Parts: sequence; structure tokens; C-alpha cells
Amino acid sequence: MSHKIYTEKWAKDVHFSIEYTSHIHHEESPFQTIDFYQSETLGTFFTLDGLMMVNQKDEFSYHDMISHVPMSVNPNIKRVLIIGGGDGGTAREISRYPHVNQIDMVEIDERVVKLSIEYLPQTASKLETDERIHLYFEDGVAFVNQKEDGYYDLVLVDSTDPIGPGEGLFSKQFYDDCFRILTDDGILINQHESPYFDRDKKEMIRAHKKIKELFPIAKVYQFHQPTYPSGHWLFGFASKKLDPIKDHKPDLWEELDLDTRYYNSDIHKAAFALPTYVRKALKNNE
Amino acid sequence: MSHKIYTEKWAKDVHFSIEYTSHIHHEESPFQTIDFYQSETLGTFFTLDGLMMVNQKDEFSYHDMISHVPMSVNPNIKRVLIIGGGDGGTAREISRYPHVNQIDMVEIDERVVKLSIEYLPQTASKLETDERIHLYFEDGVAFVNQKEDGYYDLVLVDSTDPIGPGEGLFSKQFYDDCFRILTDDGILINQHESPYFDRDKKEMIRAHKKIKELFPIAKVYQFHQPTYPSGHWLFGFASKKLDPIKDHKPDLWEELDLDTRYYNSDIHKAAFALPTYVRKALKNNE
Repeated sequence: MSHKIYTEKWAKDVHFSIEYTSHIHHEESPFQTIDFYQSETLGTFFTLDGLMMVNQKDEFSYHDMISHVPMSVNPNIKRVLIIGGGDGGTAREISRYPHVNQIDMVEIDERVVKLSIEYLPQTASKLETDERIHLYFEDGVAFVNQKEDGYYDLVLVDSTDPIGPGEGLFSKQFYDDCFRILTDDGILINQHESPYFDRDKKEMIRAHKKIKELFPIAKVYQFHQPTYPSGHWLFGFASKKLDPIKDHKPDLWEELDLDTRYYNSDIHKAAFALPTYVRKALKNNE
Repeated sequence: MSHKIYTEKWAKDVHFSIEYTSHIHHEESPFQTIDFYQSETLGTFFTLDGLMMVNQKDEFSYHDMISHVPMSVNPNIKRVLIIGGGDGGTAREISRYPHVNQIDMVEIDERVVKLSIEYLPQTASKLETDERIHLYFEDGVAFVNQKEDGYYDLVLVDSTDPIGPGEGLFSKQFYDDCFRILTDDGILINQHESPYFDRDKKEMIRAHKKIKELFPIAKVYQFHQPTYPSGHWLFGFASKKLDPIKDHKPDLWEELDLDTRYYNSDIHKAAFALPTYVRKALKNNE
């Protein structure tokens, strides 16, 4: 077998590589370079501009943690906005809640969605079959800017890193609009980078600084995502009044009897306990 | 600059690589191959038989979590046995407790200790300066077998993977002896591998199966260790009567005012909350 290697630089001198069995697809979309690969251990995976986005083996951690944490804090969520998330995994998890009646998904790059439907039905299949899901192939920044006040109960920012098309999704203006379009008990969850390698840590601090100036409640929670740099990844939980721990409703969530592989009610609380060095970085902005 | 690359196979087709600036030392000891390297992002690091053991950047997570979890459950720990841990990081953390009066460290490979003292003073320096630390360059399995009953308050198994010299430290006989040499409120902490990649998961399940048959209390806790396979690593907490959550004494621990970078009292409790797929694997032995 020839050696076909995908490599991502986690730091300039720390590399993560996957020996793939086939390079399924390569294209330059109007927004980014998209590659789909097949591998034995991680299954199908795809990269945007060379960075790992989703693979079949560990996507459940990310999609569980972005979705079920807010859904178990506010059991009355009806309208959900997903920004990004072209692979469909976040929409798939949200679609498991029967009381949700609208899932708007705004993905700037239609090609990511189309290719995920073709090559990654594990994450994307619900995009074609759940009638509550509405796809908008637009810029998320512009979408939230034109949306009316107090419309969504939950906004999930399932973005790439803050370089390339994802950059605006880490801007002050974008967070301002998220705040404005959320209901009074609305929740914003954002992809919050990682505390470990310098580049990711810098973005983690920048994002938190902006969000905590805006939202009365702004917490950060962690999980294990083995194929993202360092395997230590974060989401932000921001809201006008709901606290992710005090307002957590494990009993109501457990009544739904959802089968999850990463998330559970103990993990929910535990995820908000951060290592001391992460706490300090977020508190001191450095 | 020439490309000098250290690579570890996390799975047969998933590789973690570090571009090092210099290969400080290489030797074949009677037990294993030892290599020390220098790198920009991770600082000095060393490998045994090609596997990452310790590096300057993330060693604090591992050494915090192996040490402070048991020390904050039983504040009366006087005699501690460390099996393995040749880098000295675990002994360094235990030596921060003034009420501990004996730290026996049994490392089969004297060369690991000597080289760590030379190249990794960050972890090894206490081995030469703390008079409570007694070094035994012996096989840990034989050491615990000849030790009298009820001698230690805490046994920390800071071992390599269960291949090569670390193999016996995952055996039933070894765990039997650990049980026997512990006091009634003694605690055993063991390096418990990882739930993610198949090879590590298999060893995690095997170790837990043996320990839970022996100890009335046998829990597993997790932490982020970015340079170990998947970054998702575990320790086991086993004891005859102390529960790591019910008997946790955060107030007494905080009075000691130890400055830690990973561990804190919230992380202590949180670490025992495991993802659903890990819980199931440990419960069902598969």
C-alpha cells in the first residue's frame, strides 16, 4: 500500500497525521478548499483549508456537547439557529427534540452541505428528511444582522476557526446581533477553540473577552475531541439569564430518553469545571 | 533547518509527530530504549521504547491528577509508594505535602531516573533534595510482593503501558499485593490507559476488570493529556473504604494553599464524570 498521508499542524512543530485509504474528493469552492478522505480508524473525514472538521469516529463528542448542554438547560426551546455546521451533525442532534419546531441552518458554503450529504450521511442525513430544518446558504454574519429582535431561543455557532470564512463569526458585531435576536431566556453556544496550543489559546481568550462583556452569563465548558488540536476543546455558553448549572434540568432531559454516546447529566455539570490554567487564562485575558 | 521528526503511532494509521531541534540522548538500557529530545513547543521530552512519557509543556496535568486526587481524599497520608515514575514528577507533587513522612519510589530502570535528573530537572529535581524520598531500583512487582501487610497509605502506579517492563504492573498478582500492603483506608491510583483508540481501550477494560473484582471501591477518572494518544487519559482510584467523591475534603486541601496548574477542587469531582461510551465500556467490560 502506498503511503497517503493527511497532516495537520497543531503547532508549527507538532503534527497530527492520518494515513488515509482514499482521497474521495477535492475541490476549491468559492470559500475554501474542501477535501474528503476515507481512513480505516477514523472512517470518512473531511477538512476545510486543510484543517480537520469532522470524522465518523469522534464527531459524536462535538455534536453531543454543542447540542444537549443548552437543550437540557431550557426545555422550552422552539426556534433554533445553527450558524455553520455544514456537515449536519448539530442539526441531527437538535432534530431529536420533538418540541423544537424550527431549525434554521445558515451555512455559507453550499458545497460543504452537498458533499456531506453525499459522503457523510452519518452526520448529514437529517438535513434532507427533517422538515423543520431550513437551509440558508448565506453569510451567517449578514443573516443575524437582518433578523428581528428576540426571535431565537437558541443560537449555535458551529464555526471553523477564526481564519477564512469563519472569521466574522468571532466578531463583536456578530455577537451583538446574536444577543439581540435571542429571546430573554435565549442561549448562545459558540465553538470556543482550545486552551492548549498558543494559537488556539489566543482565540479562546479573544472570544471569551468579547462575549463576557456582552452577556450577563458567560461560561466556558470543555470536552475531549481527539482529532482536534490537543484533544482539549471548548464551547462557550452565554445567556441573558439562564445559568448552565443552576438552571440545568437533568430530570426533564432524562425523561426524553435520548441515547447519547458522550453527553450525560453528570458530564453536563462536570464540563464546566475547568483546569486551573484555563480558568486563569479566561479570567485574566492572557 | 533539517527535519528531525519523532513520530508515535496512536493507531496504525493515526500518527502524532514532533519536529525536535535536537536529539539529546539515546541509549538501550537493560530494560528499554530511552531517548531524550529538545523541541520548541513542548520543551524537553523523553520516550521509552518510542512512546511519549513526559514533556515539559503538559506534564503538570498528569502529575497533578495522579497526586492531588488521592491526597485530598485522605488528609492523613503518611507513607506513599510510587511504582515507576522515574521522571520524578509524581514524587515532586507528593513531596509538597508536609505531613507525608515517607515516599518510597520503586523504578526498575535506574537510567530513567539518572537521565531525568540530568535533562529534566523540572520533574526530577526533588529526587535529589527531599530526604523523605527513598529510591529503589527494583522490579515493582517483586517489591510489593515482599512488603509487609498494611504498610502504605497510598500506592501510585505511575507505569508505562502494559507492554515491556510495565506489563507486570497490570497483573492480578500485582494488584493483589497492592491491596494487601495498603492500610485499611489506603488508596491505589493506577495509570489506566485511555478509552479512545482500540489498543488503549482494551487495556483500560482489562485493568478495570481486575481492580473492581478486588477493591470494594473502584472508580475511574479522566483528564486531558494532549501528548498521549487521543489526549483523553484515565487514572483508576481504588480503595477499601474511601470514596473519591463522598470522602473528598476540598476545604482541608485548599488550606494547604498549593499552587496547581491543572488540579482544583471542582476538577476533582468533575474528573469522575465519564462520557457515556466510557462508562459503558467499563461497566460491560467491552
